[in-house]
Amino acid sequence: MADQKQIRRPKAETPKGFRDYFGADVTDRKAMLDAIADVYHRYGFDPLETSAVETVEALGKFLPDVDRPNEGVFAWQEDDADWLALRYDLTAPLARVAAQYRNDLPSPYRRYAMGPVWRNEKPGPGRFRQFYQCDADTVGTASVAADAEICAMLSDALELVGIPRGDYVIRINNRKVLNGVMEVAGVLDPTDPERFAAERGIVLRAIDKLDRPGSEGVQALLGQGRRDPSGDFTAGAGLGAEQAEVVMGFMAAKRADGAATVARLRELVTGSAVGAEGVAELETMATLLASQGYGADRIEIDPSVVRGLGYYTGPVFEAELTFEILDEKGRKQQFGSVAGGGRYDDLVRRFTGQAVPATGVSIGVDRLLAALRAKGRIGAQAAVGPVVVTVMDRDRMADYMGMANALRAAGIRAEVYLGNPKNFGNQLKYADKRGAPLAIIQGGDEAARDVVMIKDLVLGAQIAANASLEEWKNRPAQVEVPRADLVATVRQMLAQP
Amino acid sequence: MADQKQIRRPKAETPKGFRDYFGADVTDRKAMLDAIADVYHRYGFDPLETSAVETVEALGKFLPDVDRPNEGVFAWQEDDADWLALRYDLTAPLARVAAQYRNDLPSPYRRYAMGPVWRNEKPGPGRFRQFYQCDADTVGTASVAADAEICAMLSDALELVGIPRGDYVIRINNRKVLNGVMEVAGVLDPTDPERFAAERGIVLRAIDKLDRPGSEGVQALLGQGRRDPSGDFTAGAGLGAEQAEVVMGFMAAKRADGAATVARLRELVTGSAVGAEGVAELETMATLLASQGYGADRIEIDPSVVRGLGYYTGPVFEAELTFEILDEKGRKQQFGSVAGGGRYDDLVRRFTGQAVPATGVSIGVDRLLAALRAKGRIGAQAAVGPVVVTVMDRDRMADYMGMANALRAAGIRAEVYLGNPKNFGNQLKYADKRGAPLAIIQGGDEAARDVVMIKDLVLGAQIAANASLEEWKNRPAQVEVPRADLVATVRQMLAQP
Repeated sequence: MADQKQIRRPKAETPKGFRDYFGADVTDRKAMLDAIADVYHRYGFDPLETSAVETVEALGKFLPDVDRPNEGVFAWQEDDADWLALRYDLTAPLARVAAQYRNDLPSPYRRYAMGPVWRNEKPGPGRFRQFYQCDADTVGTASVAADAEICAMLSDALELVGIPRGDYVIRINNRKVLNGVMEVAGVLDPTDPERFAAERGIVLRAIDKLDRPGSEGVQALLGQGRRDPSGDFTAGAGLGAEQAEVVMGFMAAKRADGAATVARLRELVTGSAVGAEGVAELETMATLLASQGYGADRIEIDPSVVRGLGYYTGPVFEAELTFEILDEKGRKQQFGSVAGGGRYDDLVRRFTGQAVPATGVSIGVDRLLAALRAKGRIGAQAAVGPVVVTVMDRDRMADYMGMANALRAAGIRAEVYLGNPKNFGNQLKYADKRGAPLAIIQGGDEAARDVVMIKDLVLGAQIAANASLEEWKNRPAQVEVPRADLVATVRQMLAQP
Repeated sequence: MADQKQIRRPKAETPKGFRDYFGADVTDRKAMLDAIADVYHRYGFDPLETSAVETVEALGKFLPDVDRPNEGVFAWQEDDADWLALRYDLTAPLARVAAQYRNDLPSPYRRYAMGPVWRNEKPGPGRFRQFYQCDADTVGTASVAADAEICAMLSDALELVGIPRGDYVIRINNRKVLNGVMEVAGVLDPTDPERFAAERGIVLRAIDKLDRPGSEGVQALLGQGRRDPSGDFTAGAGLGAEQAEVVMGFMAAKRADGAATVARLRELVTGSAVGAEGVAELETMATLLASQGYGADRIEIDPSVVRGLGYYTGPVFEAELTFEILDEKGRKQQFGSVAGGGRYDDLVRRFTGQAVPATGVSIGVDRLLAALRAKGRIGAQAAVGPVVVTVMDRDRMADYMGMANALRAAGIRAEVYLGNPKNFGNQLKYADKRGAPLAIIQGGDEAARDVVMIKDLVLGAQIAANASLEEWKNRPAQVEVPRADLVATVRQMLAQP
């Protein structure tokens, strides 16, 4: 009966670029996302959980001249029908939902979404093909009050998950200010938006790299071009000295407080209508936020925030963690960005032809989790395993299950060892692997006397690690108590530091 | 620049057979799964979240003679490499994990998993191609104490989510007892397990349909065959009268209590070693459970529980809700099964060649949610929307945001209306769509007097629905209070029934 092909054993492997999450990996992330959802809910945001699968058409990734959707998404064709794909973010499904249910949803529609997304990219260290996103967006309002609200909500969320005030800052900017600067620098013609597109691209890329080639490198890129240390030449935007100065001035426009920064930006965009509009929006956002107590200690105007090249149309924002951590080589470095977002006003136009203004934020789930771990905000508690009830006599399984049951009824995590009980050493090794704080032992002799032994495994390990027993002498690693006192004694021992 | 093909608008549609979940659909399910996870955690089960994507090889669905994996899974081929697929359940990934990490995981390994799975099947009413599963399994122990533990845990979980004792029963059986009955009935030859496989298939299908064709129909299927009312003929297993009586006796073996049922089953399998083993296991499970207080009011031995055809090798169990609900035609019917599972001892053999015993349970997430809704256990609270702060004067947005902020700081869900504030009627319509219990109103006049109006929208709707205002006269639908009393008054109004 056995087919030769069936005999070849399949490999037990996670597909390349994917990963599995065990125990605290799952519960730590869940606790963080639950806390964030709490904040979002209190702000009136409703959860939305779209299907993981979308039509490629709705995702907007379909290239009509190839028989297979482009790289970037995992896609497959239904039998002679639609191409389907796994969502690559949570914004594309929101666009589809906002169009599909536009007559049923409240407008404005505030929604949050948390869940995995998939990218068909080359996996690398720390780069996975499935990862979590956590987004909040407000669809259907052009008011910058919506942008301000999202910044305030992000601030609240960061503090609730455990990033204390002072350890983060939310930097805000506005793409219209940047457009105004472009206009003044002569690389944006409001009457012909397509003109100078190439030059603007160079300017944007130069600004976006501000912290890499340094300000001289940026100046070169704004002018005739730049030869990097390896000898490669990058063509410049061809700006004259005066024009380049406007752009450089924009990047250095940050002043001691928001009002001064706004004043400086207003100077820089003099003569540009869109620039003036952007400065006014920035000022309104800052004023609204300050009036709610979200001052410069939490949210500041920072003209260097650009957030990528296309996409955003107005306010942009970014949450940065300002404390230092050690990198893999032991060097101190700032933790950096953990969330970002902004206004994008063409969300559902693809579907309905109608422009719908929207703004939103996305938290980098894995990065924020890493930050909380680095700060010791999570992980300590989750590492404690269950109390393990060992099995000395397999005929008395009911008694052992009764002990675990009684502990659980008192809210204590507990389990009976269910492997082969013959080798007691294996049971203690198991308890160790489980991270068990205590093991319960009752052999025939103890049963006859109606007592149980409680072994403190954490203390036992500490004693084994320390030469001197001196400091532990008042706290034995093993106690014998009447069976009736099991729950109370365990509770007391777990409460000890 | 605009390409003709780009002009054609994509359809804003969820792919066929998929669905989106909004608001309470998400939070209700989450609350239920959180409660279940709590119970599972207390029993020492650890969460596991595998990737949604598996290699087709690991899933075991690959047919070597077609260039595409068979129906049933969503699959696609990596560039000249592996076929990948979305998981179709949570057990296949557990098998892969148990093999892949066998040197690192504790043994026995107790794990729970909750998440979506995907089936490439024809969608139908109530049948979706993505749905949630919620599983708990113990891998690496042959002890029926593990099966008993899972039944107790399932009972605790059902009660914690809101199914009261008496409204459910967990029925347990053992496939070895059934095998013993087959042996006695002459359709199982322990020395040649392949013999009589066809006959056994007919017997199993007949038993599995017990409540459909009725016992006469089953008797016909066990014998020469059965012609159903439509005239279709189904071949029978060819059992003689005496043999058929053994099988029928098995299905009717349930007695007033577990001990009597066990005694009757022991009679029926007399002469079969595997049958005797099954009865002993069933007895052990029942004894272990009874000793923990899980008596016949929650868990009972029921020989009619078969749980499908293949797969299970020992104990099987099923949770049934015993209360009645009205079906779509208004007829009363029992709610039926919401969870099931059992022992399957070949979990990782495909990968490693080594048999690893395992047992587990799967809760039907959508069915249990439907049951909780039918019983009014969830949904009432979640329907309450946020307090909506209306905007009478768009220049005073900071004030309105301050009110929402103050309410949130007191733990009250609140939001500012962020649409176009011109038409106040639209703001109240919005509040209605949001399910807002209260609306806050402050125009220029109220602002000058430093007061706010609080409009009770729920009460307003009730007054509008009732002819008489009599019963509401002591509770006005709208109150004016000092701005300083906003939070306290809202809290008080929300606390009213």
